[in-house]
Amino acid sequence: MTNYAIIVAGGSGTRMGSAIPKQFLEINGLPVLMHTINTFHNFDASLQLVLVLPEDQIAYWQDLCQKHRFSVAHAITPGGATRFESVKNGLQLVKEPALVGIHDGVRPFVSPDTLKRCYHHAKALGNAIPVLDAFESIRQIEEDCSKALDRSTIKLVQTPQVFHTDCLLPAYNQPYTPLFTDDASVVEAYGRTIHLVAGNRENIKITTPFDLVLAEAFIKAGFEESKEEEEDEVPMNNA
Amino acid sequence: MTNYAIIVAGGSGTRMGSAIPKQFLEINGLPVLMHTINTFHNFDASLQLVLVLPEDQIAYWQDLCQKHRFSVAHAITPGGATRFESVKNGLQLVKEPALVGIHDGVRPFVSPDTLKRCYHHAKALGNAIPVLDAFESIRQIEEDCSKALDRSTIKLVQTPQVFHTDCLLPAYNQPYTPLFTDDASVVEAYGRTIHLVAGNRENIKITTPFDLVLAEAFIKAGFEESKEEEEDEVPMNNA
Repeated sequence: MTNYAIIVAGGSGTRMGSAIPKQFLEINGLPVLMHTINTFHNFDASLQLVLVLPEDQIAYWQDLCQKHRFSVAHAITPGGATRFESVKNGLQLVKEPALVGIHDGVRPFVSPDTLKRCYHHAKALGNAIPVLDAFESIRQIEEDCSKALDRSTIKLVQTPQVFHTDCLLPAYNQPYTPLFTDDASVVEAYGRTIHLVAGNRENIKITTPFDLVLAEAFIKAGFEESKEEEEDEVPMNNA
Repeated sequence: MTNYAIIVAGGSGTRMGSAIPKQFLEINGLPVLMHTINTFHNFDASLQLVLVLPEDQIAYWQDLCQKHRFSVAHAITPGGATRFESVKNGLQLVKEPALVGIHDGVRPFVSPDTLKRCYHHAKALGNAIPVLDAFESIRQIEEDCSKALDRSTIKLVQTPQVFHTDCLLPAYNQPYTPLFTDDASVVEAYGRTIHLVAGNRENIKITTPFDLVLAEAFIKAGFEESKEEEEDEVPMNNA
């Protein structure tokens, strides 16, 4: 069985205050997206990598690959108008049965241990998504006020979200609704229970200049593609 | 009217994997707690600063102050068995009427703009607490499963949480319950609506070695006690 990682990079430069879409910004001399692809390739070279990019960025990306002599094999497919459509386009390239990890292109610092947990548990349970405990108190906004939530019940969700094709493909054949905020919510709407495993704190989404500062710090601290400072394991719920 | 900041530093070294309580670890050569006190003093030198420390750490702290020739005036009072009791001890030193900000000692990177928003809005509305938008998808654990929450309704809560004594003092005379997870929840239980203002992303709690890496990065990027890279203003709710 060949497994996959669909890496979705739909970003523009808007939130970064930059003309360059954030996935192409450089950390330590290399575009964010190449770091991300390297991370998956170094984890498991047998993974089939599918990159979903806005159509008008594909030529630019290919130029970047030449410039950086980037040689990790990956298929490229154009993104859609929504993330849902982009993932759907990526799924066209998947041959079932397979495990498919869907990952944000701007999360280069997912650790090998997080990847292992996600693919391993998805193999056993049908799906797995990486989460972190909430370190801050949490409030939920209601109509004209807010209320404290029990922080111990709250998890912050990362990617890759990994699924077996037997639930992922039919889930993505459902009609789109705005309730689909991530892949887990799509599969959940198809009736499957989502399994949570521990993520890693460096696995941030690089979307603002602030995140770029963090990213450079992670690289300097030697986090990238090698070691990680692991949090306590999040116990699997409903496993 | 004299206003206050109660800086609560009750931590041990446990989560840091260190023998030194985290508030005494050094960033850029200075203990975390001195950075925090400096931040408040530089924001408004007229603020009365009250430091709440575990009784058995007070002598050590005083030695540190001598060693670093730390001269920012602050009262010291011993902490209690819970954070609730520690804050209560700090409140003994407050003369009403006043605005009182209650702040985690291990959050040295609260920005001047966040401080301004908190004290300013608390003056107008009776209280204000700083919050950030959630950048990740959020799940809430239920008995044996989890469900996606609407991320746009979720706020991550920071400190300082600032209150007028007219609600803060009677709120802290309520009997303790485990539902009191922060000062806002205490004042909320007293029947007051909590007002939210924008925090700043560098305003992290330094509790793990990972956070120390971030802290050093913030210092190098010049965030501390000077500029900040502001997020979009969180619109005041219920204002």
